[in-house]
Amino acid sequence: MIGFIGLGNMGSGMARSLMRNGKKLIILDTNKAVVDEFKAEGCEVAEHPSDIAAASRHIITMLPRTAHVNEVYTGSSGILKTIQRGTLCIDCSTIDRHMSTTLAKLVREHNAEFMDAPVSGGIEHAKEGTLKIMVGAESEQVFERAKEEVLSKMAKKVYHVGKVGDGQAVKVCNMMVAGINALALSEAMNLGIEMGIDPVVLNKSINTSTGYSYISKSANPVPGVHPKAPASNEYKDGFTVSLMARDLSHAQIASTDCHAATPLGSLTHQIYTILAQNPEYSSKDFTSIYQFLINKKK
Amino acid sequence: MIGFIGLGNMGSGMARSLMRNGKKLIILDTNKAVVDEFKAEGCEVAEHPSDIAAASRHIITMLPRTAHVNEVYTGSSGILKTIQRGTLCIDCSTIDRHMSTTLAKLVREHNAEFMDAPVSGGIEHAKEGTLKIMVGAESEQVFERAKEEVLSKMAKKVYHVGKVGDGQAVKVCNMMVAGINALALSEAMNLGIEMGIDPVVLNKSINTSTGYSYISKSANPVPGVHPKAPASNEYKDGFTVSLMARDLSHAQIASTDCHAATPLGSLTHQIYTILAQNPEYSSKDFTSIYQFLINKKK
Amino acid sequence: MIGFIGLGNMGSGMARSLMRNGKKLIILDTNKAVVDEFKAEGCEVAEHPSDIAAASRHIITMLPRTAHVNEVYTGSSGILKTIQRGTLCIDCSTIDRHMSTTLAKLVREHNAEFMDAPVSGGIEHAKEGTLKIMVGAESEQVFERAKEEVLSKMAKKVYHVGKVGDGQAVKVCNMMVAGINALALSEAMNLGIEMGIDPVVLNKSINTSTGYSYISKSANPVPGVHPKAPASNEYKDGFTVSLMARDLSHAQIASTDCHAATPLGSLTHQIYTILAQNPEYSSKDFTSIYQFLINKKK
Amino acid sequence: MIGFIGLGNMGSGMARSLMRNGKKLIILDTNKAVVDEFKAEGCEVAEHPSDIAAASRHIITMLPRTAHVNEVYTGSSGILKTIQRGTLCIDCSTIDRHMSTTLAKLVREHNAEFMDAPVSGGIEHAKEGTLKIMVGAESEQVFERAKEEVLSKMAKKVYHVGKVGDGQAVKVCNMMVAGINALALSEAMNLGIEMGIDPVVLNKSINTSTGYSYISKSANPVPGVHPKAPASNEYKDGFTVSLMARDLSHAQIASTDCHAATPLGSLTHQIYTILAQNPEYSSKDFTSIYQFLINKKK
Repeated sequence: MIGFIGLGNMGSGMARSLMRNGKKLIILDTNKAVVDEFKAEGCEVAEHPSDIAAASRHIITMLPRTAHVNEVYTGSSGILKTIQRGTLCIDCSTIDRHMSTTLAKLVREHNAEFMDAPVSGGIEHAKEGTLKIMVGAESEQVFERAKEEVLSKMAKKVYHVGKVGDGQAVKVCNMMVAGINALALSEAMNLGIEMGIDPVVLNKSINTSTGYSYISKSANPVPGVHPKAPASNEYKDGFTVSLMARDLSHAQIASTDCHAATPLGSLTHQIYTILAQNPEYSSKDFTSIYQFLINKKK
Repeated sequence: MIGFIGLGNMGSGMARSLMRNGKKLIILDTNKAVVDEFKAEGCEVAEHPSDIAAASRHIITMLPRTAHVNEVYTGSSGILKTIQRGTLCIDCSTIDRHMSTTLAKLVREHNAEFMDAPVSGGIEHAKEGTLKIMVGAESEQVFERAKEEVLSKMAKKVYHVGKVGDGQAVKVCNMMVAGINALALSEAMNLGIEMGIDPVVLNKSINTSTGYSYISKSANPVPGVHPKAPASNEYKDGFTVSLMARDLSHAQIASTDCHAATPLGSLTHQIYTILAQNPEYSSKDFTSIYQFLINKKK
Repeated sequence: MIGFIGLGNMGSGMARSLMRNGKKLIILDTNKAVVDEFKAEGCEVAEHPSDIAAASRHIITMLPRTAHVNEVYTGSSGILKTIQRGTLCIDCSTIDRHMSTTLAKLVREHNAEFMDAPVSGGIEHAKEGTLKIMVGAESEQVFERAKEEVLSKMAKKVYHVGKVGDGQAVKVCNMMVAGINALALSEAMNLGIEMGIDPVVLNKSINTSTGYSYISKSANPVPGVHPKAPASNEYKDGFTVSLMARDLSHAQIASTDCHAATPLGSLTHQIYTILAQNPEYSSKDFTSIYQFLINKKK
Repeated sequence: MIGFIGLGNMGSGMARSLMRNGKKLIILDTNKAVVDEFKAEGCEVAEHPSDIAAASRHIITMLPRTAHVNEVYTGSSGILKTIQRGTLCIDCSTIDRHMSTTLAKLVREHNAEFMDAPVSGGIEHAKEGTLKIMVGAESEQVFERAKEEVLSKMAKKVYHVGKVGDGQAVKVCNMMVAGINALALSEAMNLGIEMGIDPVVLNKSINTSTGYSYISKSANPVPGVHPKAPASNEYKDGFTVSLMARDLSHAQIASTDCHAATPLGSLTHQIYTILAQNPEYSSKDFTSIYQFLINKKK
């Protein structure tokens, strides 16, 4: 039985992918409605993280912020209270990598293993089990065990990118680029449209030239260019501005820490910080940054 | 016979693609060595742009700066002095779009046609005839004629993106995104490497996640990641920092002109401006911006 | 009799300073209400710029944009139509310095003199005749004549900063710094307040340390810190966001033109461009940029 | 007897100001040559911070980084080992404000008082005893005691800006503004000089207009404008690029922590980070950032 803590939009899809692949789950979430759904689908329900750790040897966490993961592990009813020897702890959350290495040390004192395994891909990929997962694990052996027993049931691709914490490091680099590229394309669309270019023609040209990116291929920020992108659905049901601001803040903390110059990452972080504090933008898809640029007087 | 003015790295490749497709050329360039080569390969050589215009009904220009194109057309021995009715003038240079519309008007007064047709792709693509060309032309008919008679001999894809000037507009948007994306990936590589991640693993992870772009697919700025990229060849034989600074300055002129906000485009322009004035960087490939970011004390 | 074209907030104050110093005026403006006021105060009223040039040997222009100044001089009823030998043309507007040099050439063909004399200071200084004026003039002699006969009646300080166009160049540099410094202090106030510091204490500390500037001395962007600053009066009656965006765009055009790197000038321009297109901000004082930074969720 | 730990450029000047005002000192520093000088001038010399705490009831620390202050207090021969009831601990270093509050708690457990008292002003002010000091102290009473018994002997002005940690908060805001203003003026000087303006005339104009700041009044970054500024002495003996990068990183950590948007602070931090890693710049005065902007091809 696999323990699963955190059944938000992403976590729910991931949990169901495991179930579809024949896994039994014991779950925990603060949202009662979601818990009831999973109960009806046959899952056991835990009250505390310590119940999960007592009942299972594979524990997945998929939580929004660093502080949540810390609490679930080290809190008064946390995983560490009851964790069993040999347990595989897989944290799929996107958090500060220093927390990952701290928790790994604590888990190892109980002769268990901890790895950071942040995911790439959206809600659809979580549902379909086609995520990509970047794993930081102490050994190839532990990585292979986690991949075979759990991760391959939720993901199309699973990479071992380095030691514990390195999954978060790679994730933070990727998200920083994704955030910058989204703002870059938003600027180009804004400029092109102001020069009178048709947005569909513009995106097609960029897509076949040196300016293409994930954003131009799948997530153009202008409504109507990609009919299935959040931009064409009022920026709903995407990866929110708040979460992008969080990921960019991780990148800035890391780059200040390492004295690594990241001028565009830093500016993009600032602009997403402004948006994340504006109720008009905070829960919209991160590509709504395009709306922030355009002329409001027209 | 096709007139061809401007036989730099890109122009030479494009001219030879035309020759390989059976076209006869009359050429003009200020570099005598190059002119001699083309002469040896059977081309006619002109002394002035006006000689070209007198001898041919298709004229291609591929020149480095707006002022050069202006001079070649309107100078005292320029194309306009002798241009024949019905001539097709195709400017493949990357210049200020207002110059394109100005020249188109002057050309039309001679009952000839002018179109802007800036190219996307590098020196290899020019040689192989696999460029992409974005054409601004007044009518579909003129575009089709240019495509069939000339452009398809040098390019894999030829797009009609709008009226005269719009080729430049689309080009400027694309280059702005390409410049930003190059700096974005450079920052992420710098940050990841400082955090201890292997650059090959990092690029592979980004490439399969939401951070991918043309840069991560084909032009990673870290030496060794892409063996065929300029970064792995001391940043030689690429698209230079100076030219990128020029293209980004076109983007800034356009965005100031249109009041279109482009914060990352503007910051990227500033950084390339600093590099373009530094003899250590100016003639290297634009991905050498990575070297600008890294710790020089190590 | 002095000709005065452009009686906006600044121009009206300047014109009245001249009148207070005993000068007779012939005026021109598009705002009929303002013209009627000046008529009631004893001024002659012109219908066209050419009427002004026919009636006076000193002509002051104080207009909002480059295009307006161009039209007033070169239009079909423009100054150049009737300008008299020896006339002193003083343009106090803030415009593109290339226009200044162009107009100076045209004026000189009529054996008259043109100088650019942009002003520093606000509406109050205009009213009180305590502006500072930076003059670009071809010779010391012409400068001294303008200073004595006209400028010293409107200003506390009048500087000869160089040849024609240099007044605008100095102005553009000063405004760029003022815009950056305003955003800098806004950021520091935002950060300090979020850290729990009292804004009055914070500004006082900065004011006596290395962070002080005109903004911290006289125009703190937080309501209540400087009781007489626009921030304490709902950002009314100040130098507008739109005009700051205009001045910063002149700085960007100049810096692109000269290949002079101005990273903060460029970013500040971008942010003011976004604000200038937002009806909530565009006509407020430029220090309202502070409101743009703060947390809107509180 | 006052304990003084940290006799660098600033610390030495401050210590001598105390001596000039009749104070006896017991000192500690890692630089033997400096310690010998102070010994020759009559100071007692300690081997460990714990010796200082055993010998004196007033302890001043003036150290370069957060980690140093932490070590001096909490290390195995640290102040906390021997601190006496009622001791006044005054940390004049510029460090992370969270460290200040942490140390204050630990000190209070020994019934002693800790306050953060970062200074503003340069080496000259330290020598002359004319610094400005911003104090974070728990009560007005403790502040007054520190001011009267110690701080007023080293400073021209001493402010109580809030509770413990607030001195650092105010310092970080001030330094962020100072760093931005320095880059702002550097950009304006670069732009003006490229436009042909005399740097002395330009600085004078800015100084009497809305662009003035501490930098334009006292620390112009162009050699020759201010004869006594570091710029006119090869950028020697100033506040170094490395220290400015450190202070700007504190500002970024704080602003990420508080979700306070600081776009210019963030970009300025990035540029100083690049410079701090370049041996050509790192130990020069922070106004050498001007050299980074200018055209290297001339």
